[in-house]
Amino acid sequence: MAGSVWPAPVQTRITGLFGIRYPIIQAGMVWAAGSRLAVAVSEAGGLGMIGAGSMKPDLLREQIRKTKGRTSRPFAVNVPLIRGDAADLLQVVLDEGVRIVFTSSGHPLKFTERLKKERCIVVHVVAAVRHALKAVAAGCDAVVAEGFEAGGHNGVDEITTLALVPQVADAVTVPLLAAGGIADGRGLAAALALGADGVQVGTRFAATVESSAHENYKNAVVRAGDGDTILTLRKLAPVRMIRTPFALKALEAERSGAARGELETLLGTKREMMGIFEGNVEEGEFEAGQSSGLVREILPAGEVVRRMMEQYHDAVHRLH
Amino acid sequence: MAGSVWPAPVQTRITGLFGIRYPIIQAGMVWAAGSRLAVAVSEAGGLGMIGAGSMKPDLLREQIRKTKGRTSRPFAVNVPLIRGDAADLLQVVLDEGVRIVFTSSGHPLKFTERLKKERCIVVHVVAAVRHALKAVAAGCDAVVAEGFEAGGHNGVDEITTLALVPQVADAVTVPLLAAGGIADGRGLAAALALGADGVQVGTRFAATVESSAHENYKNAVVRAGDGDTILTLRKLAPVRMIRTPFALKALEAERSGAARGELETLLGTKREMMGIFEGNVEEGEFEAGQSSGLVREILPAGEVVRRMMEQYHDAVHRLH
Repeated sequence: MAGSVWPAPVQTRITGLFGIRYPIIQAGMVWAAGSRLAVAVSEAGGLGMIGAGSMKPDLLREQIRKTKGRTSRPFAVNVPLIRGDAADLLQVVLDEGVRIVFTSSGHPLKFTERLKKERCIVVHVVAAVRHALKAVAAGCDAVVAEGFEAGGHNGVDEITTLALVPQVADAVTVPLLAAGGIADGRGLAAALALGADGVQVGTRFAATVESSAHENYKNAVVRAGDGDTILTLRKLAPVRMIRTPFALKALEAERSGAARGELETLLGTKREMMGIFEGNVEEGEFEAGQSSGLVREILPAGEVVRRMMEQYHDAVHRLH
Repeated sequence: MAGSVWPAPVQTRITGLFGIRYPIIQAGMVWAAGSRLAVAVSEAGGLGMIGAGSMKPDLLREQIRKTKGRTSRPFAVNVPLIRGDAADLLQVVLDEGVRIVFTSSGHPLKFTERLKKERCIVVHVVAAVRHALKAVAAGCDAVVAEGFEAGGHNGVDEITTLALVPQVADAVTVPLLAAGGIADGRGLAAALALGADGVQVGTRFAATVESSAHENYKNAVVRAGDGDTILTLRKLAPVRMIRTPFALKALEAERSGAARGELETLLGTKREMMGIFEGNVEEGEFEAGQSSGLVREILPAGEVVRRMMEQYHDAVHRLH
């Protein structure tokens, strides 16, 4: 990070909470967010995050150790609480001394007290105002308000980021991150105008050099236009993915009124890995958000951070 | 409009195009947007708009004449091109000397050339980048990029405002309005940060004193929280409405895989009027956007404009 060419820092409640230079948090996407990506983002002045959602406890431990060895800056771990072994994953996080934890897909009450006792900063991902209130009541230090346009698993209420963020900002007083649909500095400026203190960015970072996603996946994100992702599997857990052959099959099943059981059979258990990690274009699930249309090349993650901040300053300047 | 207490004007390509003080366009909602509302918004410094979608040509003529009699400021008419008598409605617009026309729900090629010959400013509403390109190719002077969170009829691609606006901004050079999810000055600031030149606002104006919508409808918007609208009837034309008994019936039919014909029978032809104009909570369609959760009281439309601009200036100030 060569000091002089980097955009000026921006101070918000989020940069203060995490001790970072820019209010950009890299989301902990499954199969894409390992140590390499987290290091690149943290070294660039954002908050890198390891996504434990696709890791067993031993792999998570290894990834955390690698990250600690490569950066002295803050980084986080995301743990989806829906995982059967969420407690084991969180134990690894605590054992390894990580003190910023993002939790998602589950009830924040379950582990927040324990994490707070260990002096963790706990951030919970929500998709509706009522969930934000629950997270705050459970003791979370901040919330991520994630909209319908986000890639991967999605809320059942289908509330968009633009509609959700100001409503959550009005409902809670803790620091607030906006997520879903944000891939550049214009989106960051918009999020801050809506009342957020920073952004969590997934898809843009999934298509970077340091992402552990397969090249086929990264190229699919780059090629995707504005309408090339769909939300489907609403009867199981709604998920947004690129319009691949598997995605269209799932959508067709949903539209014809397929029951839960049929959808479970169609989905199986390995679609995310097959898609994002193995690059299987036909049978895999390519989870990505509507901001795919804004991603036009695979870039180093640090360069993404730098450009976002440059565009942010331009956008704010333009508003004057 | 008492000069000194009003927020400072904001100049964008949209305010220049229309000759207005603030970059706030009131959408031409069916059954809610008559002369009274258009006059109130235009007098407050925004652009008022008559919604011809729920009017026969004679009523439209009367509403335009009333508006001309009550304000000397610019106002517009919205004509959904899907209407069988769209040509007749547009003829009334031209006969009455209105020179700002918003077209929606149809192909912009159909009438744009004719309208341009009569020196109209023509703005087309789009929900995807490819439609924006078509509108520009057809000669439109500006486009509205309307997202998934918007009330009423909606695009099939389900792209949200936050994801759509910057992608349209990158694709076209004409002035750009953002629509969907915007009900206050934070949303206006966010839209401008994303690259829009102004906003088109529906739901917030539908719940004003001057809106011709029924009190039951306005109160339903005020009561609605963030997750209280749904998008349904995807097999006909997707429409966003408040979660009323009729809406839930339509959603249930859709989820069970009901065919087009069944949905047509369920919908009938009068649901919008029954809901928005007659206030039938059980059987009517209450079209409204996700920004309903930001609407907490019925206000005069001019006061909505004033507060939006005050909040806009606050939001921009906060970004510094």
